[in-house]
Amino acid sequence: MAVIFSGCSNTSQSDAQEQPLQRYASVTGLKPEKLEYYKQLHAAAWPAVLKKIKACNIENYSIYLKEIKGEYFLFSYFEYRGNNFKSDMAKMAADPETQRWWKETDPCQLPLDDAKAEGKIWSDMEEVFHTD
Amino acid sequence: MAVIFSGCSNTSQSDAQEQPLQRYASVTGLKPEKLEYYKQLHAAAWPAVLKKIKACNIENYSIYLKEIKGEYFLFSYFEYRGNNFKSDMAKMAADPETQRWWKETDPCQLPLDDAKAEGKIWSDMEEVFHTD
Repeated sequence: MAVIFSGCSNTSQSDAQEQPLQRYASVTGLKPEKLEYYKQLHAAAWPAVLKKIKACNIENYSIYLKEIKGEYFLFSYFEYRGNNFKSDMAKMAADPETQRWWKETDPCQLPLDDAKAEGKIWSDMEEVFHTD
Repeated sequence: MAVIFSGCSNTSQSDAQEQPLQRYASVTGLKPEKLEYYKQLHAAAWPAVLKKIKACNIENYSIYLKEIKGEYFLFSYFEYRGNNFKSDMAKMAADPETQRWWKETDPCQLPLDDAKAEGKIWSDMEEVFHTD
């Protein structure tokens, strides 16, 4: 669930009363032997981690699992309502509870080559369609 | 963008004034030679198709593109606010403009084996995490 990535944001102006919404979607691999542990962790995510996600202006955050041609992949989707994504992500990365959580989740994941090359877990995806 | 699938819904009670929200996420392959055409189509999706999506109680609908190990995949995420998904999907499938749209999009896509076995384009994904 390490969400340190850049770019790939899309802005919607549908709600004028709040910060403009930016959608982020990304993908990573999941080690088959870690499948059950990853699901178990996320079925009861730590309250401190969830609280930090919210404090960092991330909302409507889902992670999906799919086996594709014998390999497991995780897809994440969330919405960001802050005004400085980079700074909020730095805040999240500096949180000791989140660091402790990532120590559990990172070893479950198999980053794709493009993410690996940048020392990241998740690869950004390109939005090709959106309708409110 | 054919969205005829079953199951895999997750209900959130966060907004008591509207129908409970159900999230749907799915994946399919994309033929490399159709990449540009698919993007072009979706960058200017037909108004009648968008109108029908809305009329069928689908909202906040995004499609993402990602190359994974040399192959292209499309990931879709949307929210459903109606009270009969199956019936709304049947309504969408009966719409002549939507049928005309799918005649353009279906030949771009490469369904995964599990979808193909059911005569579908998109494969459902399993939600393993959500926070509002």
